[in-house]
Amino acid sequence: MASWDLTISKELSMVSDFIRESIHSDEELLTEIADYVIGAGGKRIRPTVAILSFYAVGGKNVEETVKIAAALELIHTATLLHDDINDGSSRRRGKLAAYKKYGVRSALVTGDFLFTQAFSIGSKFEPAIVEITAEACSRLAEGEIRQQIRARDVAVTEKDYIEITTRKTAWPIAAGAKIGAILGGGNLEEVLAVFEYGTELGIAFQIVDDVLDVVGNEDVLGKPTGTDVREGNITLLIIDALQRGSSEDRKALADIVKKEGQTSEEVHRALDIIVRSGAVDIARRRAAEFGERAKAKLGPLRPGRFKLELLRLVDLILKRES
Amino acid sequence: MASWDLTISKELSMVSDFIRESIHSDEELLTEIADYVIGAGGKRIRPTVAILSFYAVGGKNVEETVKIAAALELIHTATLLHDDINDGSSRRRGKLAAYKKYGVRSALVTGDFLFTQAFSIGSKFEPAIVEITAEACSRLAEGEIRQQIRARDVAVTEKDYIEITTRKTAWPIAAGAKIGAILGGGNLEEVLAVFEYGTELGIAFQIVDDVLDVVGNEDVLGKPTGTDVREGNITLLIIDALQRGSSEDRKALADIVKKEGQTSEEVHRALDIIVRSGAVDIARRRAAEFGERAKAKLGPLRPGRFKLELLRLVDLILKRES
Repeated sequence: MASWDLTISKELSMVSDFIRESIHSDEELLTEIADYVIGAGGKRIRPTVAILSFYAVGGKNVEETVKIAAALELIHTATLLHDDINDGSSRRRGKLAAYKKYGVRSALVTGDFLFTQAFSIGSKFEPAIVEITAEACSRLAEGEIRQQIRARDVAVTEKDYIEITTRKTAWPIAAGAKIGAILGGGNLEEVLAVFEYGTELGIAFQIVDDVLDVVGNEDVLGKPTGTDVREGNITLLIIDALQRGSSEDRKALADIVKKEGQTSEEVHRALDIIVRSGAVDIARRRAAEFGERAKAKLGPLRPGRFKLELLRLVDLILKRES
Repeated sequence: MASWDLTISKELSMVSDFIRESIHSDEELLTEIADYVIGAGGKRIRPTVAILSFYAVGGKNVEETVKIAAALELIHTATLLHDDINDGSSRRRGKLAAYKKYGVRSALVTGDFLFTQAFSIGSKFEPAIVEITAEACSRLAEGEIRQQIRARDVAVTEKDYIEITTRKTAWPIAAGAKIGAILGGGNLEEVLAVFEYGTELGIAFQIVDDVLDVVGNEDVLGKPTGTDVREGNITLLIIDALQRGSSEDRKALADIVKKEGQTSEEVHRALDIIVRSGAVDIARRRAAEFGERAKAKLGPLRPGRFKLELLRLVDLILKRES
């Protein structure tokens, strides 16, 4: 699902080309690892939102936005590289995780390199743009550490979950929307509108991610399901299942989630309990609610093809299977 | 050795204050880990060179340079956090390494956070300044990966070593010098002079580091010696010892360096062989040569107190014991 089948495939190709340029290094191994991860595809949600936001406010010359979109994707890839090391995930985007293939040391440094290349791209822009990006990265780190602190903590509430998700997933997407709208010459109202759209969309995106981690098809996903249970990430589905199942199920799920190093059987048992609780449907409804809110935020935007594309992107994200 | 006993202790305090401000986060754990590493002291070589370079070209208002110096120290600390994870080092600056105390996940994210905060500081500056910093970071990542590729490779030459060291240690220091001189209003010749000074000084600094890793006092260093042998980092001392000792010693050293997971006895044996080969004195002389070259690069600078301090810094670095 490289393109979401929207009308910006040319721009997304430009993003890919610019990424390829940016990860070039005299140290071929750095380029190879970076290309291994980025070349594996991914949903390009950040570039997509940034470019659509740019056009939706009337932007004409997309080159600058392409560069920032590439920078956002580099940052995202850096965090994926580091996250995989943290999570001990063995697969990513249908391939062996980079740290498994190239070793922890090399994957870690490649992540740092990608961060740096992203900011190097940013350095050509006005301070406000770099500041928005850096701010999103700081919040991302905060979300990540909060998630770590609360890992395996069955007292995590929906409010906690939304706060973590806003920082980890939603604001990086919203930052791209904001920058796209600024570069597109949007007025303050429009810039705020797409930022809020990006935030709501990002939360919906994460909830769908969490759903797929329970009921997704591993071959389509390109990675195993059950990662959240294994890592003790308390998703909306786990929160719901902990409140709704039979008391026996609730206790069993809590025990598995709290435990480090569960067996595969325990992980599957936890997934069964989550499904049985009805939490999947509830989560899909919550995702749809955030999606509706995202759409509503676009009110201030002028009507047109790219506003329609932003609206359609919400539906594509809600329906996605990988 | 927080201050090098130079006349810029006030400015270095300002750097520390600004670092403290920059690592503040709503997530107290992020701030705590960052403070744990940065508060442990360190030599502040990058801020020192940046501030002295600023004044040496006639700079007056030091606030901006203080901020950039803080950013450089944040980047340095980020790489230390990540390096320690890579190296499996258990101590750093006399304390338990952060990843041992807080876990790999938290240390990794805190490193990313520090990178981001550094670039966030940079975002307030003109693009050229961010570009110099990002460029130094990219070269740093290249040096790091090259060192990894060549780890335990006894075919590494002095030329290879200098190339790796230039990227990993020297250019980040030189970048600070360059930025300091630009912000201080130096002319092109002065800016180039302090950049080259920083490069030569940085190589001298690293060679002394390598010497201390062989013959340093662990209590003064705040970390165990023998790290380079353990990690298979082919330092100038190892290169020399591999060429100069008895054929028996040379073979024994090569075997130990090539081996993963050496015993403590083997590490100590390797250090003994290095000392016996005379490589320590040779390395000290090489460091002194780079130091002299650093001094010579300062020719274009106007005479004055801060030029003298830059010269004196070379001697302090050559004499340092930690």
